[in-house]
Amino acid sequence: MISDFTALRAQLANGRTSAATALSACRAQAHSAAGKLAYTHLETSENHACRSAPLHLPLAGVAVSVKALFDVQGWVTHAGSKVLQAQPAATTDAVAVARLRAAGATLMGQTHMVEFAFSGVGTNPHYPTPAAMDALWGRDLGDVYVPGGSSSGAAASVASGSAWLGLGSDTGGSIRIPAALNGLVGFKSTANLVPLQGTLPLSSTLDTACALTRSVRDAITAHEILAARRITRSCAPLAAWRLAIPSTLMLSDLAPAIAAGFTRSIALLRQAGAHIEEIALPELDALPAIHRRGTLAAAESFAWHEPLLAQHGHNYDPRVRQRIEAGRHMSAADYLRLHQARNDWIAQVNARIARFDALLSPTTPITAPLLAAVAPASALDPAQDAARDAAFVTANALLLRNTSVVNMLDGCALSIPCHLPGELPMGLMLWHGADRDDALFNLGLLAESTLLTEALRQGAQRAQPLHC
Amino acid sequence: MISDFTALRAQLANGRTSAATALSACRAQAHSAAGKLAYTHLETSENHACRSAPLHLPLAGVAVSVKALFDVQGWVTHAGSKVLQAQPAATTDAVAVARLRAAGATLMGQTHMVEFAFSGVGTNPHYPTPAAMDALWGRDLGDVYVPGGSSSGAAASVASGSAWLGLGSDTGGSIRIPAALNGLVGFKSTANLVPLQGTLPLSSTLDTACALTRSVRDAITAHEILAARRITRSCAPLAAWRLAIPSTLMLSDLAPAIAAGFTRSIALLRQAGAHIEEIALPELDALPAIHRRGTLAAAESFAWHEPLLAQHGHNYDPRVRQRIEAGRHMSAADYLRLHQARNDWIAQVNARIARFDALLSPTTPITAPLLAAVAPASALDPAQDAARDAAFVTANALLLRNTSVVNMLDGCALSIPCHLPGELPMGLMLWHGADRDDALFNLGLLAESTLLTEALRQGAQRAQPLHC
Repeated sequence: MISDFTALRAQLANGRTSAATALSACRAQAHSAAGKLAYTHLETSENHACRSAPLHLPLAGVAVSVKALFDVQGWVTHAGSKVLQAQPAATTDAVAVARLRAAGATLMGQTHMVEFAFSGVGTNPHYPTPAAMDALWGRDLGDVYVPGGSSSGAAASVASGSAWLGLGSDTGGSIRIPAALNGLVGFKSTANLVPLQGTLPLSSTLDTACALTRSVRDAITAHEILAARRITRSCAPLAAWRLAIPSTLMLSDLAPAIAAGFTRSIALLRQAGAHIEEIALPELDALPAIHRRGTLAAAESFAWHEPLLAQHGHNYDPRVRQRIEAGRHMSAADYLRLHQARNDWIAQVNARIARFDALLSPTTPITAPLLAAVAPASALDPAQDAARDAAFVTANALLLRNTSVVNMLDGCALSIPCHLPGELPMGLMLWHGADRDDALFNLGLLAESTLLTEALRQGAQRAQPLHC
Repeated sequence: MISDFTALRAQLANGRTSAATALSACRAQAHSAAGKLAYTHLETSENHACRSAPLHLPLAGVAVSVKALFDVQGWVTHAGSKVLQAQPAATTDAVAVARLRAAGATLMGQTHMVEFAFSGVGTNPHYPTPAAMDALWGRDLGDVYVPGGSSSGAAASVASGSAWLGLGSDTGGSIRIPAALNGLVGFKSTANLVPLQGTLPLSSTLDTACALTRSVRDAITAHEILAARRITRSCAPLAAWRLAIPSTLMLSDLAPAIAAGFTRSIALLRQAGAHIEEIALPELDALPAIHRRGTLAAAESFAWHEPLLAQHGHNYDPRVRQRIEAGRHMSAADYLRLHQARNDWIAQVNARIARFDALLSPTTPITAPLLAAVAPASALDPAQDAARDAAFVTANALLLRNTSVVNMLDGCALSIPCHLPGELPMGLMLWHGADRDDALFNLGLLAESTLLTEALRQGAQRAQPLHC
């Protein structure tokens, strides 16, 4: 078994496998029961999907999936909705897609997503929900847990082995939540580093184009391609980094499994030499007050959706529609003052965390909810539908709670898996303010290696550790 | 008589005058009848105002005035209002002010302005209105014409000889309109080139910190200091530039004097070798539709003023208050779609004008209105007040019409005087989209020289031409 696409690329380079073989294997996975649910559209042309780019390109032989809000020439950018399914196919690739293609990637298909990317649970009434898997330890979790969202199919495509890189987006946690719930690596870069041309917007302020991968080193390559930049590598050991755990908000109401996993992960990092302070970050408690007149995502999505809602509102996912409609009555003045309050808040938080290289938090305070508890309305039993709607609202708020802090901060974050074999997947989130991306990557390589080594020492049966 | 501060600096360098003498001369002008009206606050410390910086600094010996919306340590940033007069003095300089000081400038005082910078006429009910002067040909026009605004005092300070550089701001034309109406040079740079920290906002999107001067070469030095950059000089002759006159909107309803002056100026430039096409720019006719739900300035100023209006609205200039209140009922969605429409419009206009180095238009379609026709309400005769309010609205819309196109375009523009001695002052505006600033300066030097040479040939009695 090949651990990540960096390892695949090494095997291609030394002739131990061929691009055609690698792409065929992914294609077979995409047609498996688990794999199919990841996609709303599979590239059907056998030739196209299996034709590899010249081998010197960094993603030659690498299968990639694309979240359905990125334009791909010839595909309909439906963004998980019913209301956009009949529109014409895109005539050009989004910039992010074009960059992946130019790097040699083979597009496997278009992935399932929360309608218009507006929630973190991963359900969508228009399509069957892909199930969460444990990609780190290769475990089938049964078809019982939601995959997290909104890049639900992006995670399912990578976890099921049909793609090595799931192109997605993160407005409040949409890359990192499915990464955490599926044992994958999810990196949300500083928002402006990857152009958004050709993507269907949720929040013009917060949207970030980014990717899910199987390892931090893959995440680095993905980011370098998507952002058309090189990160600065560091050789500093773990002990050289100044780390902190903010206690405010981020550690509240943790599920026992998350609390135990986070505590264990911090202890492992400390054993490996990391210096980690615990700090208060009282600014995080100010977020509800800052948002009392509404959110950026509500205001900005409503501005985009208003004409579409007027015509086709009844065909929206009611849970998504409700979130968009929250922006209807926001005034321009409230919106502008929200931006001002955000700018002030960012300055305050950055002043407090400037002396650290990264902060550490659980990516999500809970593990994957059961699909049965939060599934879309069935219209068979209104009382049960209402109970599931309520459970959805609670789960959605919890899943997004920690990750969305980083979007509000205009920051960057890397979620790496930190569970042991047999546990439900969970993520350790390394994060900071804008343009601290490179430090997170360098630190992430060290943290990933530390956590994996310990897990393997405890007897995990993984075929091949990362960074072989 | 010294023509501009570049000439003054040459005299200082070769010892023909001293900084103390130069500053004292400005100080005397600031205390003259015309000079006084330019200021709402004069630096009273004789020592301070006359102490010059080390002579090697580019503005040593150069008196500078500051529009009352820039923070100056120790002064109250009242922005021409009554409602902010009692607030504490600023504790630090605005970035633009700090840059001028660091370049050796001596601050002469704080200048008169339209309340909160929200109109182009130059009147303000809280202060006597400075009168328009003809700075180019040194002619007193009597105290009968408005100076234009909102940087009314900035223009009056330079025209009256008490400052060489009037620091101001331009959100819809507030530098260029008073430049045109007072025979001065006004340059509105691309908006983001000069930081706005420490300035009281009108429109966070459109505000530009910039300056009024007596010549284009002074404008270049002012811009280089304010923007902390060097422009790229060009040696290309006038014939090498690709110029165009957009006929749409910009040439509509010109006052006969403006039409004659503009036609003459274009003819002079053509005689001097300039290639000037006439083009349609139909996008300019789309602006009313783009603004049908409100303007950026209304939405953005209302967001800032709402709490102040609630407490002190009755003490606002009613004409300004009305313009701010127009933003009260704008929704966040309308505001966001206005930004989107603006971005699309900018792309369309830029595509059409990309092949030109600059466009030529009259800065204003009318010369300075009579103060008596547009003066603030006297409360003595309601019918007359209403007639003047109506005349104000008409004059304001006309004065801002051409200049505000450039702000909407996120562009840059240089207004240079183009009237003959004896005529009322008027401006020729060279303009283009974002980051075309340097071309406008290079071309502006050539155009200024061409127009002045011709005026002098026609017998003007100016003591000393520019660029001697």
